[in-house]
Amino acid sequence: MIEVLRLGHRPLRDKRITTHTGLVARAFGADGIVLTTEDNAVINSIKKVVKNWGGNFYVKVIKDWESYIKNWRGVVVHLTMYGLPVEETIRDLRGKDLLIIVGSQKVPKEVFELADFNVSIGTQPHSEVSALAIFLDRLFEGRELYKEFNGHLKIIPSEKSKKLQKI
Amino acid sequence: MIEVLRLGHRPLRDKRITTHTGLVARAFGADGIVLTTEDNAVINSIKKVVKNWGGNFYVKVIKDWESYIKNWRGVVVHLTMYGLPVEETIRDLRGKDLLIIVGSQKVPKEVFELADFNVSIGTQPHSEVSALAIFLDRLFEGRELYKEFNGHLKIIPSEKSKKLQKI
Repeated sequence: MIEVLRLGHRPLRDKRITTHTGLVARAFGADGIVLTTEDNAVINSIKKVVKNWGGNFYVKVIKDWESYIKNWRGVVVHLTMYGLPVEETIRDLRGKDLLIIVGSQKVPKEVFELADFNVSIGTQPHSEVSALAIFLDRLFEGRELYKEFNGHLKIIPSEKSKKLQKI
Repeated sequence: MIEVLRLGHRPLRDKRITTHTGLVARAFGADGIVLTTEDNAVINSIKKVVKNWGGNFYVKVIKDWESYIKNWRGVVVHLTMYGLPVEETIRDLRGKDLLIIVGSQKVPKEVFELADFNVSIGTQPHSEVSALAIFLDRLFEGRELYKEFNGHLKIIPSEKSKKLQKI
């Protein structure tokens, strides 16, 4: 079980970033995403992708992220540029039930304490979207890109055109 | 020379996605980003990161993306879920001057023709931000995460806290 917890969504500013975070979670092999803000535009975008492209990826909204983290029966990973390098930590995380926390700009200090591992993807500022993608790619060692989703839509890789199969 | 060309920015919708694309380009080892829309919020966010965190990453705005692509003296790569898998193409791209095109939702058909390589990061929908990160990570084989930027701000990796060095 790999779940992503998105902390700190601001509807006016973060709509697309949170949506992309959800799509990355799904495409790179997580089982679901947990949001702390009810934003139907985000939820519907992610659900529409699941409906068309397949898989069992889920979206849920919670109120109390603090007890959610405390009650997680597995390992809690917080992706942050301040943490320890992913290369040093990833071996300890494979094969475990993970709650992967991705924050927006201001993450409460408490999260650093609650996490079992604070993990960084490089030490430069970039994006929660890319941090999550690289983390999951390291976790699954690139195999996630070949995961089958058995959806209604499927792409046939092509050199120069768009080949989309509808099933 | 590795340059990222961001096609199709819509200021109301894409501000943060384009900013994150620029930050990923920088953090993952590209030399600069080219925008096709003058959006000062985006440009200033990226420039502020360069000023504080170091490196020579540049941002420029162009009007005519079509002739820009045609005049590129190197290899043109278009990141698209419809392309050929990154694993099959990346070996041919290392060590070359690359223009890496990342689009938003509607990329003109012409771009598929103009590109020397249409490259996919998996065949599921996710994000231009994650696609660019994984592409550059494959290109530089993970070494980009250790690039030194010699900026005013520097993170000291830490297990539980934020350690930021100001120089």
